[in-house]
Amino acid sequence: MREEMLTEHPLFQIMHPRSVAIVGASNDFTKMGTIQLLNLLGGKYPGKIYPLHPQEKTVLGLPAYPNARELPEPADLAILTLPTSAVPEVLEDLGVRGVKRAIIISGGFKEVGEKGRELEALLVKIARKHGIRFIGPNCIGVIHPALHLNPTMYPYFHRAGSVGVASQSGTYVTQILPLLAKSQIGYSQAISVGNEANLDLVDCLEYLGSDPQTKAIAVYIEGVKRPREFIRIAQGVTREKPIVALYVGGTEAGARSSASHTGSISGPDALYDALFRQSGVIRAYTVEDLYEWAWALASLPLPKGRNMAILTHSGGPASSLADACNRWGLKVPLFSEGLQAEIRRLLPATGSYHNPVDLTFFMDVGVLMEKLPEIILKDPSIDGLLLHGVHGSSYFHQVAEIAKNFIRIPPYEKVKSFFFSAMEAFVRLPERHGKPVIASAFTEREDDAVAFSQDHGLPCYRAPERAVRAMAALCRYAEICSRE
Amino acid sequence: MREEMLTEHPLFQIMHPRSVAIVGASNDFTKMGTIQLLNLLGGKYPGKIYPLHPQEKTVLGLPAYPNARELPEPADLAILTLPTSAVPEVLEDLGVRGVKRAIIISGGFKEVGEKGRELEALLVKIARKHGIRFIGPNCIGVIHPALHLNPTMYPYFHRAGSVGVASQSGTYVTQILPLLAKSQIGYSQAISVGNEANLDLVDCLEYLGSDPQTKAIAVYIEGVKRPREFIRIAQGVTREKPIVALYVGGTEAGARSSASHTGSISGPDALYDALFRQSGVIRAYTVEDLYEWAWALASLPLPKGRNMAILTHSGGPASSLADACNRWGLKVPLFSEGLQAEIRRLLPATGSYHNPVDLTFFMDVGVLMEKLPEIILKDPSIDGLLLHGVHGSSYFHQVAEIAKNFIRIPPYEKVKSFFFSAMEAFVRLPERHGKPVIASAFTEREDDAVAFSQDHGLPCYRAPERAVRAMAALCRYAEICSRE
Repeated sequence: MREEMLTEHPLFQIMHPRSVAIVGASNDFTKMGTIQLLNLLGGKYPGKIYPLHPQEKTVLGLPAYPNARELPEPADLAILTLPTSAVPEVLEDLGVRGVKRAIIISGGFKEVGEKGRELEALLVKIARKHGIRFIGPNCIGVIHPALHLNPTMYPYFHRAGSVGVASQSGTYVTQILPLLAKSQIGYSQAISVGNEANLDLVDCLEYLGSDPQTKAIAVYIEGVKRPREFIRIAQGVTREKPIVALYVGGTEAGARSSASHTGSISGPDALYDALFRQSGVIRAYTVEDLYEWAWALASLPLPKGRNMAILTHSGGPASSLADACNRWGLKVPLFSEGLQAEIRRLLPATGSYHNPVDLTFFMDVGVLMEKLPEIILKDPSIDGLLLHGVHGSSYFHQVAEIAKNFIRIPPYEKVKSFFFSAMEAFVRLPERHGKPVIASAFTEREDDAVAFSQDHGLPCYRAPERAVRAMAALCRYAEICSRE
Repeated sequence: MREEMLTEHPLFQIMHPRSVAIVGASNDFTKMGTIQLLNLLGGKYPGKIYPLHPQEKTVLGLPAYPNARELPEPADLAILTLPTSAVPEVLEDLGVRGVKRAIIISGGFKEVGEKGRELEALLVKIARKHGIRFIGPNCIGVIHPALHLNPTMYPYFHRAGSVGVASQSGTYVTQILPLLAKSQIGYSQAISVGNEANLDLVDCLEYLGSDPQTKAIAVYIEGVKRPREFIRIAQGVTREKPIVALYVGGTEAGARSSASHTGSISGPDALYDALFRQSGVIRAYTVEDLYEWAWALASLPLPKGRNMAILTHSGGPASSLADACNRWGLKVPLFSEGLQAEIRRLLPATGSYHNPVDLTFFMDVGVLMEKLPEIILKDPSIDGLLLHGVHGSSYFHQVAEIAKNFIRIPPYEKVKSFFFSAMEAFVRLPERHGKPVIASAFTEREDDAVAFSQDHGLPCYRAPERAVRAMAALCRYAEICSRE
């Protein structure tokens, strides 16, 4: 999509509103609409906010309007969090006032049966009459961290990132945030599509595919409404950027659950496998993999092949990485004799140097995080590196906590350079060599080196097998790209 | 094993020493032996500790002995963290002084090739001469939290638990502790076996199988030395308690890595599959699953069948749980009409009640965590419950952080009862109904309800699919038990 077209996309306008009318917020802290407005305010959304409320003169300190028809201007976006039956009338009023974009949070439509289906059809009719494009109903809204736009009920505390999200589950846009924050997996923009009465997953793919902040797209799917268009749009997008999909409607229980969740019509697993294959979409099977793979795909250069090097100071993770590589279709080739000799020079006698490289208890962080990766990644036969054992402050703090009662321990600042000396070089490896590097460690952001790695775009996962699976997704996407 | 026999088991004596001689500790904080001694001291090990040191008069304030022959008594256990070449002589001296049990941390033996193999054979010979039984070499030691015995280089900060560990990787006993602590997965006793020159995995299974604190056993395997004995012992143990195994030697890369790590001779994947099947051992494929499954198996009653109920207030996780159930061989049956009617009475109009049960945005914690589980688990056709969405303080704190600048927020203590009212009842469900309940949430122990659940023996995992896989492991073990 060309740039001038991007700004005309209905989702661009929903994701970049200069003004928001919010219907359902009040001064009662326990109401969902109120929490949504608090998130807009607390997140420092820079646009105008117009709360609508039938009785209150002000809502959370903002002047309130009794009715959409009395809005001082046709807001760029309206957000509706209302009892089901009140939605059509309010949408009609918004339309009359000239509002053209909306997010309908309220549930109780298609997903609850015949009566809800009728009500949802009415929404579509009203929208068509007024030229309104909307997300929902039965969704949780959208998040655009860089624009400080978060009118969902969940605060977004961590940094904006480059993973775009389109989801038929609101939970996977909001409640999952604490988990994503632990790895610094950040959204470019995230959209909960709900029942997709008007705008759907395909629209989201089209939009996120053109959004320059979005480097990879994660999609949660219970059922695709427009499979032909999905394939056409996804084929175009995956030529430019990767899409990872989690599809849960392909089993009997998954299909039943999805039908009552968003009223989606799911299809057999094999059908969706084919749909994804044809579209160049990578399929994940768990919500953790969905986001972790998208994160790696958004952050790293693609490998030229499946030959991986493994580097660690722990024998167990070395074997786990090696075993998982083979199980996920990655190769762990024996290094050439020349490379082995180069590596061996830097290792203690107990170390292994064939691939995996295991330093054992040798604690030279510079060798582990800089010198060896440099030597290994320079070798043209190696396509990527898996490294287990990023560590900085956490072990020191743990030991110091025990030891301080018995001996004098230097303050962490004095020894930090020991742990940290190589981190700057480490996070630059992917760019320097044009090859992917994925790390793992059994600590998370309580360790400053893990946090540093994540903050500088080098994914560090909480277990070795997770790193391997993400690397396999990179290889998969590299192959998808080279098919064309 | 009868109790009097248990106390005679060489591993019982290693895990319950009244005195420890430690060789390799000094007053230099950067030495591994020193950190091990600090852990013993800091962990408040109640027995006597005798540091051996050729020069120092005291080590970390304790009187030091220049030589094993001058020990004031034959210590129950000796721990050796020395340069490889020094180990045989020290072991000989310990033997002469009458020490009968040892842990040899030092590496540089079988795992590094021919010369190391000879040196390892020498250790075995010396041990045999003096009647010494030992763990290692090339291991990380043992941890027995309830006895405050942790002579490894990693502090153990969280609570003792009921998962027994035998591992051919020291990392999976020590460095993995921060990860395990995040879910309150606690060891009964953990043993890093290293090269298994004397005591091996089979000895560990035999011992942990008889240890009354150990309710489930997690085993990390690169290669089994004595497969026949493994089967015989494991068959006996799995009649009484579950064993979960992670085997990484069954792929080409995993086998090569394992050979250079502990010098293990691994075997084809299919062979180990058969070995595990014959022994009644449950096979995991990732280190996270290994521990998470063992945790569930150690904590929960076994299901009578594979019929699962799913309960949540989020549609996405409901579908993910349902889909994952079917993928992992669990059933999610439609509830009977009577049960559906009972459930429906407690739900808002937007809720689903067929199974999965989805409360949607209805926030009555008592309904989610107590009333519905009670109704569902009473139904004889349901064998277990998966619940996503345990939550207490974390969401409140997040929202309060945003909202406090705009409205008056009550202190958490005032609203805690709202979130917490049903937690006491929730954690008693498995015992009350004799059925397993496994939870998930996207927060970890920063949420007080998640921490409460974990602290009271009801596993709560960080993602829905993890809960399903653990439940599948429970079903698997129930079937293993009923085969006999």
